[in-house]
Amino acid sequence: MHYGHMTSPTEFSLPEATALLTRTPATLNALLRGLPNTWVRSNEGKDTWNAFDIVGHLASGERHDWMPRVKILLEHGEARPFDPFDRFAQFKESHDKSLEQLLDEFAHLRSENLAALQALNLQPKDLPRRGKHPSLGAVTLSQLLATWAVHDLTHLHQLSRVIAHQYRDAVGPWSAYLGVLQCTGHSAP
Amino acid sequence: MHYGHMTSPTEFSLPEATALLTRTPATLNALLRGLPNTWVRSNEGKDTWNAFDIVGHLASGERHDWMPRVKILLEHGEARPFDPFDRFAQFKESHDKSLEQLLDEFAHLRSENLAALQALNLQPKDLPRRGKHPSLGAVTLSQLLATWAVHDLTHLHQLSRVIAHQYRDAVGPWSAYLGVLQCTGHSAP
Repeated sequence: MHYGHMTSPTEFSLPEATALLTRTPATLNALLRGLPNTWVRSNEGKDTWNAFDIVGHLASGERHDWMPRVKILLEHGEARPFDPFDRFAQFKESHDKSLEQLLDEFAHLRSENLAALQALNLQPKDLPRRGKHPSLGAVTLSQLLATWAVHDLTHLHQLSRVIAHQYRDAVGPWSAYLGVLQCTGHSAP
Repeated sequence: MHYGHMTSPTEFSLPEATALLTRTPATLNALLRGLPNTWVRSNEGKDTWNAFDIVGHLASGERHDWMPRVKILLEHGEARPFDPFDRFAQFKESHDKSLEQLLDEFAHLRSENLAALQALNLQPKDLPRRGKHPSLGAVTLSQLLATWAVHDLTHLHQLSRVIAHQYRDAVGPWSAYLGVLQCTGHSAP
């Protein structure tokens, strides 16, 4: 165990991963819709993302990344690497949209993608099937699906940090007690 | 500037802080209600918190910490320190409840507390009023209210990390790209 404690990592489960993926749009909606621009349009400084950029990135992933990669893996195995994921696509795709439009778009695309995933009727024997990541090399279908869910969480983690950052001075001496203000940006884009 | 970049910190604003505080119960509800126990009852190892503990802690803060401290500050200024915040109260208060009960309880208490805050009809001149924290010393009303909001975010940050932690192995080589898996627990309780 390289984590220094006793819990054992959870094995991938399609219903459990889907339960997470299903909830992300409503979570972001509850947190962000109607929130003042102070929180939504402020970032952590030069070349960092604000909440608007993060939602645009998640919508972009639904369009170009996750399900397209699932399909490449199932059709071509390791013979054809996935297309690289453009982590900056949202700056072209989202700049003229409102946050509310992006939240709706993300919810709509996620719902379509989860329906398409279900339609594949994946079986346990499919989960170890392999594809080829353009930089990481061989990866399995279950790793791809687990990453889709944890990618949501990495951006929820980033989002809470970006919003908190705006009050880094307003909290005064309490900043020492607020872990989110000590996060060193490891989940920045 | 000790942050190494160009953005300036945001000044406290009561309506903007309230906009955040108002949204937290629905955010946690969207993320957690009905989520499988794999995500809700697993922690990051010995002496760490799972999602259930975190929601219990937030409910406990509504009961014992934030508004009681606002009232002590307004009534006694620096003459009477705040009562210390028992960060483990939820282990007594929540153990026999369901996650759904805790989510309802948190939403109800938060809503009552925000109504009580509004009833105080705080004016800009009140925001610099001072109280006494039992360890940190003098703090202002605006710092206390900003901390209430950032405390929500620190636990949302922790929550996303605790959930992601369960799939730290399931994501395979992608873990290198997922910032939430690199977070070193600085926002642990």
